[in-house]
Amino acid sequence: MNFRSDNVLGCPPEVLEAMARVNETPTHPYGNDPITARLGPLVSELFEHEAWVFPVSSGTAANGLALAAITPPWGAVFCHPLAHMLRDEWCAPEFFSGGARLLPADGAHAKIEPAALEARIRDTVYAAKPATVTVTQATEAGTVYQLDEVRAITDVARHAGLAGHMDGARFSNAVATLDCAPADLTWRAGVDALALGAAKNGTMTAEAVVVFRKDLAEQVAHRRKRAGHVSAKMRFLSAQLEAFFTNDLWLRNARAANLRARQLAEGLAACPGVRVVQPVEANLVFVAFPPAMTMALRARGFEFLDWPSLGEGVVRLVCGFSTREASVEALVEAAGGRGLAS
Amino acid sequence: MNFRSDNVLGCPPEVLEAMARVNETPTHPYGNDPITARLGPLVSELFEHEAWVFPVSSGTAANGLALAAITPPWGAVFCHPLAHMLRDEWCAPEFFSGGARLLPADGAHAKIEPAALEARIRDTVYAAKPATVTVTQATEAGTVYQLDEVRAITDVARHAGLAGHMDGARFSNAVATLDCAPADLTWRAGVDALALGAAKNGTMTAEAVVVFRKDLAEQVAHRRKRAGHVSAKMRFLSAQLEAFFTNDLWLRNARAANLRARQLAEGLAACPGVRVVQPVEANLVFVAFPPAMTMALRARGFEFLDWPSLGEGVVRLVCGFSTREASVEALVEAAGGRGLAS
Amino acid sequence: MNFRSDNVLGCPPEVLEAMARVNETPTHPYGNDPITARLGPLVSELFEHEAWVFPVSSGTAANGLALAAITPPWGAVFCHPLAHMLRDEWCAPEFFSGGARLLPADGAHAKIEPAALEARIRDTVYAAKPATVTVTQATEAGTVYQLDEVRAITDVARHAGLAGHMDGARFSNAVATLDCAPADLTWRAGVDALALGAAKNGTMTAEAVVVFRKDLAEQVAHRRKRAGHVSAKMRFLSAQLEAFFTNDLWLRNARAANLRARQLAEGLAACPGVRVVQPVEANLVFVAFPPAMTMALRARGFEFLDWPSLGEGVVRLVCGFSTREASVEALVEAAGGRGLAS
Amino acid sequence: MNFRSDNVLGCPPEVLEAMARVNETPTHPYGNDPITARLGPLVSELFEHEAWVFPVSSGTAANGLALAAITPPWGAVFCHPLAHMLRDEWCAPEFFSGGARLLPADGAHAKIEPAALEARIRDTVYAAKPATVTVTQATEAGTVYQLDEVRAITDVARHAGLAGHMDGARFSNAVATLDCAPADLTWRAGVDALALGAAKNGTMTAEAVVVFRKDLAEQVAHRRKRAGHVSAKMRFLSAQLEAFFTNDLWLRNARAANLRARQLAEGLAACPGVRVVQPVEANLVFVAFPPAMTMALRARGFEFLDWPSLGEGVVRLVCGFSTREASVEALVEAAGGRGLAS
Repeated sequence: MNFRSDNVLGCPPEVLEAMARVNETPTHPYGNDPITARLGPLVSELFEHEAWVFPVSSGTAANGLALAAITPPWGAVFCHPLAHMLRDEWCAPEFFSGGARLLPADGAHAKIEPAALEARIRDTVYAAKPATVTVTQATEAGTVYQLDEVRAITDVARHAGLAGHMDGARFSNAVATLDCAPADLTWRAGVDALALGAAKNGTMTAEAVVVFRKDLAEQVAHRRKRAGHVSAKMRFLSAQLEAFFTNDLWLRNARAANLRARQLAEGLAACPGVRVVQPVEANLVFVAFPPAMTMALRARGFEFLDWPSLGEGVVRLVCGFSTREASVEALVEAAGGRGLAS
Repeated sequence: MNFRSDNVLGCPPEVLEAMARVNETPTHPYGNDPITARLGPLVSELFEHEAWVFPVSSGTAANGLALAAITPPWGAVFCHPLAHMLRDEWCAPEFFSGGARLLPADGAHAKIEPAALEARIRDTVYAAKPATVTVTQATEAGTVYQLDEVRAITDVARHAGLAGHMDGARFSNAVATLDCAPADLTWRAGVDALALGAAKNGTMTAEAVVVFRKDLAEQVAHRRKRAGHVSAKMRFLSAQLEAFFTNDLWLRNARAANLRARQLAEGLAACPGVRVVQPVEANLVFVAFPPAMTMALRARGFEFLDWPSLGEGVVRLVCGFSTREASVEALVEAAGGRGLAS
Repeated sequence: MNFRSDNVLGCPPEVLEAMARVNETPTHPYGNDPITARLGPLVSELFEHEAWVFPVSSGTAANGLALAAITPPWGAVFCHPLAHMLRDEWCAPEFFSGGARLLPADGAHAKIEPAALEARIRDTVYAAKPATVTVTQATEAGTVYQLDEVRAITDVARHAGLAGHMDGARFSNAVATLDCAPADLTWRAGVDALALGAAKNGTMTAEAVVVFRKDLAEQVAHRRKRAGHVSAKMRFLSAQLEAFFTNDLWLRNARAANLRARQLAEGLAACPGVRVVQPVEANLVFVAFPPAMTMALRARGFEFLDWPSLGEGVVRLVCGFSTREASVEALVEAAGGRGLAS
Repeated sequence: MNFRSDNVLGCPPEVLEAMARVNETPTHPYGNDPITARLGPLVSELFEHEAWVFPVSSGTAANGLALAAITPPWGAVFCHPLAHMLRDEWCAPEFFSGGARLLPADGAHAKIEPAALEARIRDTVYAAKPATVTVTQATEAGTVYQLDEVRAITDVARHAGLAGHMDGARFSNAVATLDCAPADLTWRAGVDALALGAAKNGTMTAEAVVVFRKDLAEQVAHRRKRAGHVSAKMRFLSAQLEAFFTNDLWLRNARAANLRARQLAEGLAACPGVRVVQPVEANLVFVAFPPAMTMALRARGFEFLDWPSLGEGVVRLVCGFSTREASVEALVEAAGGRGLAS
């Protein structure tokens, strides 16, 4: 049973079927096809604002393109020390932006503290031009910024002339948790460019950049093309996203994953010696097992990653859209718990 | 009937089925999966040489990554004036390489003439460091370099200390035409880094970089990651490539497309007023129709692109792996021909 | 006697004295000094327009920074095939711009032909975004664009939405020849960013970027800093430029150099077997000597460079601000001439 | 009296005279001159090792070029949180390296603590490839790494496969303090590439990159050219450096500056309410004045910078090669001291 990553799962039948349907009819390449043409209106309606959508094939690309559209090569990008862009993307932000710099602004539970952001901006005088703040939603610690928390950050940002970027690798999970309008979490909250994660929550390979201004859309268009992220048969990415946003599949998937994570956390919290170390607000559970238990669980076939950046002995358990209750129950029981309450 | 591009077609059932199979079982993300692990040996066997394979989602990325692995940021890359990298990739070569420069070396039928390459190298003294030659195989004009033609170019290159790059967007078609070993066309002929096109010939979105030296593999690995071309669920790209190389699907597809192009060319050559303007050696046919005929054909639903770089009034007709003989026949008849000989 | 380059000469006493004066008094570093502060008004007056001046220490830097201020990383920059930026700057334009591409537009005597520019722009569809045209004034062939010639080019440029860049490595010589206002040759003619050469005409190491819009000035300021072209003791560069522009030193120097070049050309034109191959409109003379004469002249200590890009056997002879009439006379006589007419 | 920066001072007569001498004779441009040719042997002798020297016109350029020669675009560069490259160079390290990332490793008195470096390397798994460590010598806090301290760091570095970079903006001051061979502080201690500061200690505008391996020299040569740091009349930079290294001018200057700093520190330490906050081991003095005193001193014409990164209310006082004892005495007295002991 694999709790290693959201990406260990494939995609639900709706997505695969949409791709198979697209396969039946020849059409124009490079995104000049009817499926891709429908994405803009679909996402604009979802976000209650004119939006430009750019399918790409990785979250790193989505983050980098969104960032580069709003950050000059000499810009400082403020992010949490645990941000995926800072810790896991192999200098992709520098590559896409042409040399911008990520600078950490700390805060509990992987959320940037507005005061820390302010201090960091003040301290960035000759290093780089303060340009952008990026928040990850849901965060790398499995927490979710409340709407007023996002706004508190983008208020500081706007005051200092910064643009707003969101790493929405788990955007769906955050929306599901907050039960808010996507607009509330993005353009209404000062987010200019969104890397909208989809693969962790049910597409096969499609992610997207979403921007809310035409000038940014032009930036993304130019940058995506020269970065080789315009797939010749883009319609197969677009079809995944269309299926993802149709009939609330994205929300249903996210709710399912979030529910499993809550169940898992509750179950594990009741296990002797097990400590849940972060609030569980999305589909990630961070726990400290006793060392022997970690080994025992792995020996029994449970897969999960060590996560030392959140503490000695901490591991990360990820639930996905298709994680079964039985798997969660099995893990809880293996950890010495009594199964799930529900 | 769509003769616009190889990319208007989808993929054959083998590819879609392979993807569906992968979808059934969770496995490790980011290419650490068994499907991707099988690709190296598979391609190494095909090329009769240890080879490193990197699935990516666009030909522009494959070209750029392969190029950057062998070219310094101050390098001159010699290419044909009609090269896709020079004419169609929106400064991607510069982006991936960090600033290298493409310099044209001319020749008939979109093939670099060795003497022109030599002259161009001699003339590049303070502009950039002569670093790389790139050949497109099959070429952008639908011709195919003979093996000795490739070697004549890479001989000049080696003598001048250049590395060899191949834009193999239609590599399959060239191999099918030459009926040679893939090795003959690549490492045995001095090609260090290959952008191996697959999407034009039957994968859904997967292309690949193939290199034949470990130091280049490390370069590609680093560069692919920071360019956002490591798809989280890379196995879905790998599965496409595995299916592509299994049971000679790639060659069968290429032979089918090449055959249709030959049929089309022969049929059109017999049409009054129609002139086939390039040798037809792969799956592309370049013809000059009388202007009225161009309009009439389009009015009847035939789709194809104007191709002025090969002459006033020239259009490009592309056959793909699934182009039907009936479509070819229909086009020939609409152009005033008597149908196909065969 | 050295006719190899304008850069073989040092600087006139006014420049050295200005530097010595600056050396006497401590003052603020990084350009926050009174000498640098005076440059803006001085140059603005000279150009009859608010101008921002950025001293730098090389022409390549001046060109690159001026170019990058007006060209996106995916921009096409149209230049003459003989342009210094294309032939001699080791991919600096790509480095400064972050990946833009130089594309040649031909014309006689190293001047871009407007029709050739138009054709080139039309042909640049998927390669890069047509962004900028750059003219070299005086040209690399020693000719000078007439005012209406510059305007004809920038008219095409403006119509196509391109910005205007001038490589003014020998700007002084061109102004001296045309006897026009600097404004006529720059912002009035559609030039947005000027690399203003000074070292070839009398400063020691100082060149400058000059722009006529505040948004471009901000671009240059950011880019100059991160490129390490903000000298800590910038005042020593500024002092050179101030001396250069004071009491018409720049024009007096340019006129002197131009005069010597004309004398040289006239003298050589009268020599048997010697052919002057380009109009002599600035301080450069391109001649074809009989091969034996080239060797004989070098044996007698005359230094000059072969210039094959302007023809088999062609050499370049450069006169500078301090080239003596006696040197010119000596060369003419050594080439079999009767000395100078004047 | 200006204690603001080493760069407020000009250059000693030896330097100016060397430049004036160079001005007398035309010679080859772009560094192909006899003065530049002498630099290599001169510096090689000084460093007791074959060395390649590249004059440039700013410390930022020297740092960036030296760094880029040893760091790939996806490399992590470990530096102290107070490092000039991190705090003051406007993303130049990213620009020159093509996207590498600076990551802080802390330690007291602006010196990297080896254990902190080790921890930081271990923590850099997916962010970037650990590639380089850079130490500033003397440090930004005016301290000097002892030889064994440098070696302790480069030991960690070598063990982890990192290259060694030194920001030697105040290299002279450190050598003067340690009274060691330059070799001991550089290649013998594992430093591959040195940004050798000279302008802060007596040249007018010349700084230098020094490397100790031929492959790195080639890297720097290519990179310097495309970055526009090959001055056409490079001989004027080379002449400054030659004078700097002749007759121990660099060491005499550094000793003089260091002595003044010690005098200043001793004098101020005896002033009521004044606290010297860092060990004074080079030419920088960091002190905390009572706020009223800071204002009073400035009102009396003493210039110096606030330096909040070393503590609330801290200011930086810089002595240079020509700072007079009387100036130091005046400042001490104005701060309530009794003058200098010596």
